[in-house]
Amino acid sequence: MIEGSEKRREGRRGGRRRDRGSAPARDVDYRNLRHPFPAVPVFSEDRVEAIHDKALRTLEDLGIKILLPEARTLFRDAGALVDDETQMVRIGREIVASALASAPRQFTIRAGAEHRDVQLELGHLTIQSGAGCPNVTDLVHGRRPGSLADFEDLVQLIQGYDVLHMVGPATEPQDVDPAVRHYATMRTILSRSDKVPFVYSRGPEQVADAFEMLRIGRDLSKEAFEAEPRCYTIINTNSPRQIDIPMAQGLIDFARSRQVSIVTPFCLMGAMAPVSIAGALVLSHAEALAGIALTQIARPGAPVCYGAFVSNVDLKSGAPAFGTPEQVKANLAAGQLARKLGLPWRCAAGCAANINDAQAAHETQMSAWGAMLAGCTILVHGAGWIEGGLTLSFEKLITDLETMQVFAELCAPTPVDDAELAFDALQEVAPGGHFFAAAHTMERYQTAFYEPLVADWSNFGTWTERGAKDANTRATEIWKSRLAKPVESHLPEDRSAALDGFIAKRTSEGGAPPVS
Amino acid sequence: MIEGSEKRREGRRGGRRRDRGSAPARDVDYRNLRHPFPAVPVFSEDRVEAIHDKALRTLEDLGIKILLPEARTLFRDAGALVDDETQMVRIGREIVASALASAPRQFTIRAGAEHRDVQLELGHLTIQSGAGCPNVTDLVHGRRPGSLADFEDLVQLIQGYDVLHMVGPATEPQDVDPAVRHYATMRTILSRSDKVPFVYSRGPEQVADAFEMLRIGRDLSKEAFEAEPRCYTIINTNSPRQIDIPMAQGLIDFARSRQVSIVTPFCLMGAMAPVSIAGALVLSHAEALAGIALTQIARPGAPVCYGAFVSNVDLKSGAPAFGTPEQVKANLAAGQLARKLGLPWRCAAGCAANINDAQAAHETQMSAWGAMLAGCTILVHGAGWIEGGLTLSFEKLITDLETMQVFAELCAPTPVDDAELAFDALQEVAPGGHFFAAAHTMERYQTAFYEPLVADWSNFGTWTERGAKDANTRATEIWKSRLAKPVESHLPEDRSAALDGFIAKRTSEGGAPPVS
Repeated sequence: MIEGSEKRREGRRGGRRRDRGSAPARDVDYRNLRHPFPAVPVFSEDRVEAIHDKALRTLEDLGIKILLPEARTLFRDAGALVDDETQMVRIGREIVASALASAPRQFTIRAGAEHRDVQLELGHLTIQSGAGCPNVTDLVHGRRPGSLADFEDLVQLIQGYDVLHMVGPATEPQDVDPAVRHYATMRTILSRSDKVPFVYSRGPEQVADAFEMLRIGRDLSKEAFEAEPRCYTIINTNSPRQIDIPMAQGLIDFARSRQVSIVTPFCLMGAMAPVSIAGALVLSHAEALAGIALTQIARPGAPVCYGAFVSNVDLKSGAPAFGTPEQVKANLAAGQLARKLGLPWRCAAGCAANINDAQAAHETQMSAWGAMLAGCTILVHGAGWIEGGLTLSFEKLITDLETMQVFAELCAPTPVDDAELAFDALQEVAPGGHFFAAAHTMERYQTAFYEPLVADWSNFGTWTERGAKDANTRATEIWKSRLAKPVESHLPEDRSAALDGFIAKRTSEGGAPPVS
Repeated sequence: MIEGSEKRREGRRGGRRRDRGSAPARDVDYRNLRHPFPAVPVFSEDRVEAIHDKALRTLEDLGIKILLPEARTLFRDAGALVDDETQMVRIGREIVASALASAPRQFTIRAGAEHRDVQLELGHLTIQSGAGCPNVTDLVHGRRPGSLADFEDLVQLIQGYDVLHMVGPATEPQDVDPAVRHYATMRTILSRSDKVPFVYSRGPEQVADAFEMLRIGRDLSKEAFEAEPRCYTIINTNSPRQIDIPMAQGLIDFARSRQVSIVTPFCLMGAMAPVSIAGALVLSHAEALAGIALTQIARPGAPVCYGAFVSNVDLKSGAPAFGTPEQVKANLAAGQLARKLGLPWRCAAGCAANINDAQAAHETQMSAWGAMLAGCTILVHGAGWIEGGLTLSFEKLITDLETMQVFAELCAPTPVDDAELAFDALQEVAPGGHFFAAAHTMERYQTAFYEPLVADWSNFGTWTERGAKDANTRATEIWKSRLAKPVESHLPEDRSAALDGFIAKRTSEGGAPPVS
């Protein structure tokens, strides 16, 4: 059943609504999406139970290597069997059960503006662009290492599309020293966007800096900041069965400040995970449960999301593959496991193509459909991600947004009242005629249908006359035109000055080099 | 639940299976697919009932214009109210109910080889390439009117991929006189393919010729031919509310010979149908019911499929649009109506792009997912269709086949036995290690995953060294290499000679000009 959000608000699409007399509006709030389809299972319930049980056995019998001493101490105090020499932690199922009992099933991340708040709960859908890419590419400047200017442009673009709900780390600004890079990225996000920001877990100092900047930028006391989630991090375990120092530290620090950790093992079947879907899910599930447990031991009730990013490698070359049937099935299975836990959860699209071509579009959409049908709460890498995440393509960001916007449209209810059934129009138009000028059409034509972002539906002759522009050429025009607009600042002047002061002070102190 | 076909046969993928010791096979029979997902509704049941009821009212109160006198006579004899002056036929709901009672809910179309037989029934999935295109395009020869040579090449390509189950009229051989064109196309299909052939309904003479050629080519008596379905036609009504002479004649002739009609109104919302999804469905449903009724009046029990091809136009230009959220929703709604009738049914993907770019891939896959989730029995235009059907792209045929093959893979069951859960492998691989050389991997790596048709998963450096070929360039290499192989004849020599004799005789008689 396609159902709209109960909290759907009128006129949310900014610039898309027009005067349409008394006709019913096609009114879609891209900011507030609920899944339109029932989640689709891939395994029977007893097989889901078998995966869950094998994951618990993995944690109990095989254990997980945790490199951070503080995390091992927390686990030991919670009753886990810890060997400090091997750094192995064996986690009993009662510890996991206790964590799952205290982890909240729904929470809201507060953004810079109320209408940007993100509610994380099974049934809701939020989308994030491609993230974590060291490189960027576009038709104008070519492929290159990401820079701060690129990061600024990407935050600007992400801010401009309601269907992207959070600001992920689209690219890595490699022209900024790693010790002070997080100042530049957080400042950019706070000034150019009012959406929920991502924070990297690269050591306690960087995390503390980011939290402080968020407090300054959003004008919050420490108490107010810790009262509600304001940002999120993504914790990729070091599969198989390992959590490194900054990741474990991030889980602890975010939990203690009541900020959101999304625990996402990145398991490529055949590489860092077994070569079967079920086997990879056992590993991924075990690692996610270990991470979730650590957050709840550090602070019961801390907001945390389950995560799964399971795809396969090309077994001829070992190269990562995305958009495969195996990834779709793994997404569906992960959704079953998430629903078993009852936690909001993160899934992902993906694309291994080297250019934004038909392969790239196929792979991102195929895997995104897997995430959609799995009922994911957060769809990561929904737009722009190519080369298995090594590069963020500006053109693909735009063309994938078309797919994400169509998903958002599918989330909206479809009216079927008498007026929509259009019997009068059928009566009005003679056999063999057309409906272009029917009264029913005239009342509705301005808002009846989704207006595409990048699709060109003109016929071949017109399209040729207009320069035979392919989707990438048109996407280039779109992002260039977006970036040519004046930048709107989301920071009041005093907040901006206070942020600059903080950054100057911390920079003079040497910043905070990432911990590895 | 992803379930495999109960009749799944081993080793059907031709050339893909390799020796893999005792490990479980990933064995997918692309020739025999069943839907893996429960069909997704878009409307509540009472709204589906409302659409059905309004469609019945449309037929009863407004009527449908039927240009063929014989068809009006059949309807009159069945109790419909017929006005021969206006050619309007008003069809009571009892006539529709009687037709739905006699239309078979499942049947098999016999192909040239048993393993190519197509079972049409709710729950089954068959796929057809793009069809009905006046033009073709490829990177080597450019865009041009379709020729017989192109038609031959396309039949050859369609034959080569198991995931395409029937041979549709991929392009129109415009270099062959329309009076004898059907001899050339049917001869091509019978000699180059053993799959179920399409026959155009372009007048009784052409249809009789095609049936005769099929009898000759497949060595069947008239009785044997009429005992079971052997071919299919697609009847597009002339929306709104009109059925022209060759279409009505086709419905009658196919029914009388117990061959398959697929009644598919082509309803673009805002053009030949109301500008709302529900309104367009009322019209499409009414027309499909009228066509189905005619087949059952002509011969009760004749094999017939319900069809729906509903998308929208761009309301700024009137241009057809595909892959839109409106098309996806219309597909889902049509599936609900088809399930209400209980008949096998035809749905469609679509693409309005002018070139095989990211827009094209997005649109075909988006609409194809709509058809998949709608539970369609026949997915038409699954590969190669661009420009809203004006052109068949050789490259897009190949790149879309990747999407169709992934769908086929999703139809296969996903094992979760103890071996798949891979606990031993988890035990074998140390934390932070990898599974490339694990025993579990070594046993399975040759058949574990789908092997892509056109995707290139090499990294950017390797991909660049190899010529930085985009998906279209690689697709060109694939179809060229396929066509470079020797043509396998599916016609024994005596059948071939008999066919040639028939064609020579009919050609000397002037052939059979299409009826309009």
